[in-house]
Amino acid sequence: VTQSSLSADAVELGDYQHYMQKEIFEQPQALAATLEMISGAQTFTPNLFGVAAPELLAGVQSVLILACGTSYHSGLVARYWIEQLAGVPCTVEIASEYRYRVSVPNPDQLVVAISQSGETADTLASVRHAKAQGMQRTLAICNVPESAIVRECALRFLTRAGPEIGVASTKAFTTQLAALFLLAATLAKQVGRLTPAVEAQHLNALRHLPVAVQKVLAGEADIKAWAAHFANKHHALFLGRGQHYPIALEGALKLKEISYIHAEGYPAGELKHGPLALVDKDMPVISIAPNDALLEKLKSNLKEVAARGGELYVFADADSAVEEEPGVHVLRLPEHYGLLSPVLHVVPLQLLSYHVALVKGTDVDKPRNLAKSVTVE
Amino acid sequence: VTQSSLSADAVELGDYQHYMQKEIFEQPQALAATLEMISGAQTFTPNLFGVAAPELLAGVQSVLILACGTSYHSGLVARYWIEQLAGVPCTVEIASEYRYRVSVPNPDQLVVAISQSGETADTLASVRHAKAQGMQRTLAICNVPESAIVRECALRFLTRAGPEIGVASTKAFTTQLAALFLLAATLAKQVGRLTPAVEAQHLNALRHLPVAVQKVLAGEADIKAWAAHFANKHHALFLGRGQHYPIALEGALKLKEISYIHAEGYPAGELKHGPLALVDKDMPVISIAPNDALLEKLKSNLKEVAARGGELYVFADADSAVEEEPGVHVLRLPEHYGLLSPVLHVVPLQLLSYHVALVKGTDVDKPRNLAKSVTVE
Repeated sequence: VTQSSLSADAVELGDYQHYMQKEIFEQPQALAATLEMISGAQTFTPNLFGVAAPELLAGVQSVLILACGTSYHSGLVARYWIEQLAGVPCTVEIASEYRYRVSVPNPDQLVVAISQSGETADTLASVRHAKAQGMQRTLAICNVPESAIVRECALRFLTRAGPEIGVASTKAFTTQLAALFLLAATLAKQVGRLTPAVEAQHLNALRHLPVAVQKVLAGEADIKAWAAHFANKHHALFLGRGQHYPIALEGALKLKEISYIHAEGYPAGELKHGPLALVDKDMPVISIAPNDALLEKLKSNLKEVAARGGELYVFADADSAVEEEPGVHVLRLPEHYGLLSPVLHVVPLQLLSYHVALVKGTDVDKPRNLAKSVTVE
Repeated sequence: VTQSSLSADAVELGDYQHYMQKEIFEQPQALAATLEMISGAQTFTPNLFGVAAPELLAGVQSVLILACGTSYHSGLVARYWIEQLAGVPCTVEIASEYRYRVSVPNPDQLVVAISQSGETADTLASVRHAKAQGMQRTLAICNVPESAIVRECALRFLTRAGPEIGVASTKAFTTQLAALFLLAATLAKQVGRLTPAVEAQHLNALRHLPVAVQKVLAGEADIKAWAAHFANKHHALFLGRGQHYPIALEGALKLKEISYIHAEGYPAGELKHGPLALVDKDMPVISIAPNDALLEKLKSNLKEVAARGGELYVFADADSAVEEEPGVHVLRLPEHYGLLSPVLHVVPLQLLSYHVALVKGTDVDKPRNLAKSVTVE
């Protein structure tokens, strides 16, 4: 038996109505705590991932990320970062798929298991499956220190989100993203792809992240106003591109989990390959952080469905030129944030699903049929 | 100007009501024509993919498949085959994502572009993007010989599905699967992973495929009966695992495209990570080719939603022990078909979407807002 060292403060609601709300608003502190190790750092070092990391990360030729649910989405974002920053090929796979299929083991591959609880049954089994095939370079990214996945892996990075009680994961997700960005930057540094100037930029951007998230949270009122538009819908389509495609998936998952709205995420380029047939006044389209060129294409796609009442909601970057017009609603984020932009863009989607659930009166912290940690198959 | 050599027969409806119906029922012939080159073969040879194939396929270290829409789903199935049969790592990426992100080029990687028309704008651009980064081992899998993607690639395999006119792709998909299985077997042969006995088994299974598909088509009446259950629904969840997960995605896409039902595909293991919250009497769950162990887990998951009227529809394998019971409906395929099972399991899903569309009275061959070939972004 391990005595929990949680303070009462960490698990009490205080002034908040729900744990999910509390956890959304705790993200600046959770990110600051998770990134504390680099608060005074001049460089990204493998030691962030444990004492064996300098040895185990050296010579890593590719990365395999294994996870489920929201953690899988953080892995999908990491793929864009790891390939772009470090030039290391990265695959992301749903743990329940990986563990049951015949794959190609590679002992020089780094296996990264992501799980808030560290007890997700399929993720744990997938790490064991990888190890049984000779893959010993394993890294756990978890929020619970004593957990099974942490014990199973050679390396670990503990997110310091504090206890997450709401079933819909929020601060665990953004702190996983922070951890994964550290990993991408560390791998990049190791292969000599980070100039000192770029390294300093990334370190500064990470250190500024809590403040940047705080600014996004300050925009809650606008998102609350949008929530009223969604509460009577049964469908929604979330579109993103590049590193924001997984954020579209995550936004859709949040709305599914606590608002029981059938929201689906798609890469924006696939709209014309099927889902456009579904769009009408009952299925709003939400676009995450598009660049302006993409947005023009989206607008032209949606002109076709204007007659059926199709509406576009855009979470735009600070420097986007997109304007409100009939059928096109725009919320602009306070800052444009480059590679770390997914960490900011997920926050309004968390708030949106929270406020939609409030309007609908669902049980925000304990949505029907879902458990906080899926510790059985 | 190239004179088309299509016979009138190939583009006339004949006794069929819709092109999609005609094309679903043409699949045995389309598969037989596509597989004609191996009708008397004793072995899988690289020459199936063009005269330069022996040279270009030798030493391939990994495979990158690029596609959109339904073709992307055939690529996802191929990943299971290529890794399992050939032991060659395979990545599958949506063309519109690949072309705009910073990825890690690998000149020893085989780039496979899949497109029915050979004119899909994003797929063509993604091949050019790969080539611009030094990847010259390119293979087109297309249904139109004179097309842009075929001209762009060093190697080609032409599916011989004949003209596909219905917007919802059916025979193009199953013939792409046949082509991709040939590729997986050829790569496996090349690296010495096919014993003569196993090679003969695969060749026999391929040659029997048209007959096996014909037997599935003979079960249309049962599927038509199921269609009545779905026509008044606005949602559906398709679950699959392993090589049938992409078939779940494809079944959902077909229903989206022509029935305007918001159907979504999920890997079965992810049900408890979110979508289970949505399931009620208005969202039936369709399970594709589960093994019996998985099915027991699904049933136990769905017991939780029985009170809300959740219903499970199972497309089972011939040798599955699953039985009908209240809330659990079962359709059994005539044959259990091992690795090629996805080719059979997609057929009842095509028929299901077709018959649901008939009940709903939608425009089957020209669903709203969709074009046959997406030749613009």
